[in-house]
Amino acid sequence: MHGLRNGAVSTIVNDWLINGEPGQRIDATDRGFTYGDGLFETIAVRDGKPRFFERHVARLLNGAGRLGIPAPDTAALAAEAGQLAAGCGYGTLKIVLTRGTGRRGYVPPEPAVPLRCLGLLPGARPGPEIYARGIAVRHCATPIGISPATAGLKTLGRLEQVIARAEWRDETIREGLMSTPDGIVVCGTMSNLFLVVDGALVVPDLSNCGIKGVMRSVVLDKADRLGFEWRFDDVPRESLAAADEIFVTNSLIGIWPISRIESREVMIGPVTRALMTALADAGVEECAQC
Amino acid sequence: MHGLRNGAVSTIVNDWLINGEPGQRIDATDRGFTYGDGLFETIAVRDGKPRFFERHVARLLNGAGRLGIPAPDTAALAAEAGQLAAGCGYGTLKIVLTRGTGRRGYVPPEPAVPLRCLGLLPGARPGPEIYARGIAVRHCATPIGISPATAGLKTLGRLEQVIARAEWRDETIREGLMSTPDGIVVCGTMSNLFLVVDGALVVPDLSNCGIKGVMRSVVLDKADRLGFEWRFDDVPRESLAAADEIFVTNSLIGIWPISRIESREVMIGPVTRALMTALADAGVEECAQC
Repeated sequence: MHGLRNGAVSTIVNDWLINGEPGQRIDATDRGFTYGDGLFETIAVRDGKPRFFERHVARLLNGAGRLGIPAPDTAALAAEAGQLAAGCGYGTLKIVLTRGTGRRGYVPPEPAVPLRCLGLLPGARPGPEIYARGIAVRHCATPIGISPATAGLKTLGRLEQVIARAEWRDETIREGLMSTPDGIVVCGTMSNLFLVVDGALVVPDLSNCGIKGVMRSVVLDKADRLGFEWRFDDVPRESLAAADEIFVTNSLIGIWPISRIESREVMIGPVTRALMTALADAGVEECAQC
Repeated sequence: MHGLRNGAVSTIVNDWLINGEPGQRIDATDRGFTYGDGLFETIAVRDGKPRFFERHVARLLNGAGRLGIPAPDTAALAAEAGQLAAGCGYGTLKIVLTRGTGRRGYVPPEPAVPLRCLGLLPGARPGPEIYARGIAVRHCATPIGISPATAGLKTLGRLEQVIARAEWRDETIREGLMSTPDGIVVCGTMSNLFLVVDGALVVPDLSNCGIKGVMRSVVLDKADRLGFEWRFDDVPRESLAAADEIFVTNSLIGIWPISRIESREVMIGPVTRALMTALADAGVEECAQC
């Protein structure tokens, strides 16, 4: 029942709470299932604690506000997250918030009775060489869609990312970059993208698509702290060649430097390393391996 | 348990089969729930039979092929659909097909073990005046996204439609039209759109977004049978004013003529009426009320 406790992460044994009750089953009429009408968070658990928990909750609440889903009880969320994470040395906490069940049809039930699911899942521990030597990435053929209505949000509708991630099986390629139909590079399938150009960070603008990642916001805060200039900008695929450093971020990995895009080698540079050190100091210990 | 049998459709009592077994609960790790990694069909049930069942199954199989989800057992699908629909005078059959459960992360499990959910739900019987006098529609402010990767498919990710449908509560407005961020009108929140311009049908092109509806395909077949010219084309919002007739379609409603868009009156014309009559002859009996 508690396969993830005490650092035992080898088997897929899940601990779930559905609206606070132990269980792992949801109703087939839940709008999260029928329409993707909900949001989720994926949180690193380290030494019994969910990392950057307040930032994840803040993003969830912001998304719920945008979608008109009643905000979850944050005290219950924190208690349940703490309960699941306690005793887990290394894992992943997932939170799903949906608009709950309702009669068929897109019109949202009024009032909605949201569903709150928390689950503790295994965490795959990336090898230290990823942080020291960087990763190889590819360009995905699957475009990321332009969806201003949901841009920035970590909604339950992630099918484009699934299709893009299904493009390759080579495990040495750790991530795929996704571009809009117009060839603007936006993100990785599971990560946010950063470029370093002439010493400044260039961060893809996410007002029309993509997810505003929690680790992305942490990195931007660290960039401010370190005095690095940064700007939001469109990143045409050709402009990747002009970047001095490139890296991706997410909550589970911290920063992964990119050392190769398709056949092109990329250097792991001083800005990336400084940000990784800053993250390590903030508790993203895997980034200390840079 | 069987609240929809024998035409009793007033309460929300659901009959569900999950992978052929009675039950209404799915696992919280199912990829349909976690990522919208699946498809669905919404089928009218009339006099104990799912209407246009073969077309719905064909669309489901086509979508599964595009997404790389193993095709469901069509004999089992037909048997389960027949079992649920038997004895239901008027209702809605829902089929959901997902890629099933799998470890966390977008990479699809190989092999995937799909989940097959069928549910019988109440059907709201539209009044005859809708068919005789047409409906009022509005323009939604929420844009429909540009997503070539999933365009045409009835995927589980319908959050844009939910947001658009939440824009209005006035029950006399029966549908909202959705446009791309560039102002190209594509569809209704729950329907496909047809225009009649100079005697020919103009049908929004769905290669970048929208769902290729089963009733849409039936109507196009009837248009061919009746000798009506038709073409796929982009429909800028301004061009709606040049349309002589406008109507929307879906599997549950057949054809609804549009008699008003915002403050502009629209005539219900001969092409719309001829297609409604053809549908009525093909078993969409509600369209006989035109």
